[in-house]
Amino acid sequence: MSIVIKNTRSMLNKGLIGRLRRDCQVDWRQFTYHRFVKELALGTLPKEEFQQFLLQDYLYLLDFCRVEALAVFKSRSFEEMQYFSSVLHDLLNIELPLHISYCHEWGIQKDAIENIPKTLELLAYSQYLLSKAMQGDLLDLIVLLMPCVIGYGEVGLNIISDSATNMHNNPYQSWINMYSSEEYLGIMQKTMSFFEIISTKYGAEQRYQHLLEQFQTSVKLETLFWGVGQAICL
Amino acid sequence: MSIVIKNTRSMLNKGLIGRLRRDCQVDWRQFTYHRFVKELALGTLPKEEFQQFLLQDYLYLLDFCRVEALAVFKSRSFEEMQYFSSVLHDLLNIELPLHISYCHEWGIQKDAIENIPKTLELLAYSQYLLSKAMQGDLLDLIVLLMPCVIGYGEVGLNIISDSATNMHNNPYQSWINMYSSEEYLGIMQKTMSFFEIISTKYGAEQRYQHLLEQFQTSVKLETLFWGVGQAICL
Amino acid sequence: MSIVIKNTRSMLNKGLIGRLRRDCQVDWRQFTYHRFVKELALGTLPKEEFQQFLLQDYLYLLDFCRVEALAVFKSRSFEEMQYFSSVLHDLLNIELPLHISYCHEWGIQKDAIENIPKTLELLAYSQYLLSKAMQGDLLDLIVLLMPCVIGYGEVGLNIISDSATNMHNNPYQSWINMYSSEEYLGIMQKTMSFFEIISTKYGAEQRYQHLLEQFQTSVKLETLFWGVGQAICL
Amino acid sequence: MSIVIKNTRSMLNKGLIGRLRRDCQVDWRQFTYHRFVKELALGTLPKEEFQQFLLQDYLYLLDFCRVEALAVFKSRSFEEMQYFSSVLHDLLNIELPLHISYCHEWGIQKDAIENIPKTLELLAYSQYLLSKAMQGDLLDLIVLLMPCVIGYGEVGLNIISDSATNMHNNPYQSWINMYSSEEYLGIMQKTMSFFEIISTKYGAEQRYQHLLEQFQTSVKLETLFWGVGQAICL
Repeated sequence: MSIVIKNTRSMLNKGLIGRLRRDCQVDWRQFTYHRFVKELALGTLPKEEFQQFLLQDYLYLLDFCRVEALAVFKSRSFEEMQYFSSVLHDLLNIELPLHISYCHEWGIQKDAIENIPKTLELLAYSQYLLSKAMQGDLLDLIVLLMPCVIGYGEVGLNIISDSATNMHNNPYQSWINMYSSEEYLGIMQKTMSFFEIISTKYGAEQRYQHLLEQFQTSVKLETLFWGVGQAICL
Repeated sequence: MSIVIKNTRSMLNKGLIGRLRRDCQVDWRQFTYHRFVKELALGTLPKEEFQQFLLQDYLYLLDFCRVEALAVFKSRSFEEMQYFSSVLHDLLNIELPLHISYCHEWGIQKDAIENIPKTLELLAYSQYLLSKAMQGDLLDLIVLLMPCVIGYGEVGLNIISDSATNMHNNPYQSWINMYSSEEYLGIMQKTMSFFEIISTKYGAEQRYQHLLEQFQTSVKLETLFWGVGQAICL
Repeated sequence: MSIVIKNTRSMLNKGLIGRLRRDCQVDWRQFTYHRFVKELALGTLPKEEFQQFLLQDYLYLLDFCRVEALAVFKSRSFEEMQYFSSVLHDLLNIELPLHISYCHEWGIQKDAIENIPKTLELLAYSQYLLSKAMQGDLLDLIVLLMPCVIGYGEVGLNIISDSATNMHNNPYQSWINMYSSEEYLGIMQKTMSFFEIISTKYGAEQRYQHLLEQFQTSVKLETLFWGVGQAICL
Repeated sequence: MSIVIKNTRSMLNKGLIGRLRRDCQVDWRQFTYHRFVKELALGTLPKEEFQQFLLQDYLYLLDFCRVEALAVFKSRSFEEMQYFSSVLHDLLNIELPLHISYCHEWGIQKDAIENIPKTLELLAYSQYLLSKAMQGDLLDLIVLLMPCVIGYGEVGLNIISDSATNMHNNPYQSWINMYSSEEYLGIMQKTMSFFEIISTKYGAEQRYQHLLEQFQTSVKLETLFWGVGQAICL
């Protein structure tokens, strides 16, 4: 096991993020060991389901960007502003164009991306993030985003360390590689470090119960989002 | 047909609201002639489904209040502020307590109301209203609320004017009476009048295409919300 | 000294509100013993200055209502929503109409109220409240409003207990009476009680330094607002 | 006169931006021909005044970034999001670091930048932008920012084309060069083009009266901001 992986695993169990994961561990397991994830690891996931997942994920990422923009608005310091603005900039200029290329590789046409019908799963999750991000302060906002950022990396690590995983002719290999890459784990670590700093600054301890509720709802919505490829569109 | 009913029907077909209804008429019919509505009219709707519907509707109303509060924030004039504040005040001090009494009549216990698990249908709709209300201006906000306010009244009118309706021993008679009452129709008319004033003031004509999209999404989410009594909770 | 006054004085020195007042006591004194207040107590304040003060205060109250509306939006519970909605409703339906009547008594015409030019003092204070109310959570919001709510009552109490006050033919007697009335002190007490509940619920202790900064800025802006009757309009 | 200057001048008189400038031309002249600007052009502006102006301008830019972040949140399309995110990114990573270097050149110490006391002029302007940006939609937001973006460039052009300008040993030469540079004029042109696109998309014509009021208030606050170097701090 590489040092980056070891460090990431260790960080996932420490601090506020470790506490939040432990305190909703049943939900956390359902999220990280979802049927969708298993079929992805085995390479048995139907192509059509993955395609719809990619399209809904694209719309999700656009609203995720809007939440990062609200984080800039809600930042108190120049450093906080720079941090969130940099995440936003990378999402819009690196991740999203990559995501579109990836959609093309999976045979999704350009006009399909421009006219994606929405699912309940997508709307419930993305609009929940946006409205709660507006209602609370920067700590309330960032706790909502953590399940997404750390969950995908944890899933990536679980998949590559599972002997049952199909590593030879898996059509989803590039997806697995992405979320278990040193680059992605680096982003995860940076996010977790920043989260702990914000937690202290904004008094997370005395606000723990509410933060846990928000985190848990976000985890449940992530879990339902795995099923988005089978969901009915509006 | 009473004059109030006649006037309400007439207003539903005029102005911007008439245009919006016509331009998404397929969706509008699916909303106003939904299976849930038919079973309610026949009195065949399962009690358990209605109970869960009432509970989800309670949570919906709480977020509806938050949207009305945002309308006060977004108001430009004293008159606009007073209008939305008055709606908010009545919702919190009349409608919601009435809703809770009604829940009790249907055998729902107090602690069930205090710990309602959420459905995707509820979250998708309520959080969509909240986040879009923040993103746009007062006209964007009010157009999102119209399907709810006028749709329930239109459904009430459809039910009472349909000869197939069970009017003798229908367990849902009080619900039907409420949304076809002169009082409710009065609220509808007032809302429609106010909507037309806001539409002109905020330049709805040149913004029509976007307003229609928002209205239509709201209609679709209302339609899915009818099914909330059969939906799985988070 | 009546019991209501005694209790109000006592509450002002306890809990979080007492701590905040003490920790910016120099600013607090400048606010509560401002030249404007002294001239008001002596009855020597120029009429024109008071008139412009009333008009700017009217505009301030309108934005104060918008902040209360944001409080409803940011509320987590039904009780919080009802509390802030009730404050909002009273402001729009009782205080503001009273304020307009009072303006008329002071010879201000209706059209003057409809076209009030804005001062820097007004904009700095009211827009600061609004933008910070959006940026933070409910506790951040409510701490910003405290200097206004409790300061006016404290000023009222100081004036009526000061032997130097002109109590016989003071043109500002009704203003003094209002802010030292049992009714106003009752509102103050209710606000202070509610503030302490919110403080605990939202973890004020670990967030104290930031809350103090917000409170202090609000106090300074209140202080400058006393001078608004002499200020230049935009 | 270079082509870039000619094109910029031409764009300033066309479309919605031309109409807005003309319809508040008295205010626009007071803004662009302010005493501060004249003393800057002559090189007679007191150094201390310029230093305080730079510090307040730094705080202004931070809140300007927050408004750009809100623009990302309020964007409807990917292209709009990318546009505003890119402006935000450049401000935080190029403009603001440059501004700090420039402050150092003018003898302002690092800790002075970290503890800048605020003026009424700064608060009134920056908080007005933030709160109105929240209240309205993307068009309301962008119209508020135009006076700042185009005004500084117009001032730069006026100064360099004025024979009275001290171009030989002017201590403010670098400031003048910056805002009359081809690079800055390029940004201005891009902003004006984008503004016209947004104007059409969001129905500016039917909303003109309100947009003009917002624009005019922003111009007046810009005008007062020129005097910030002589203003009293909170």
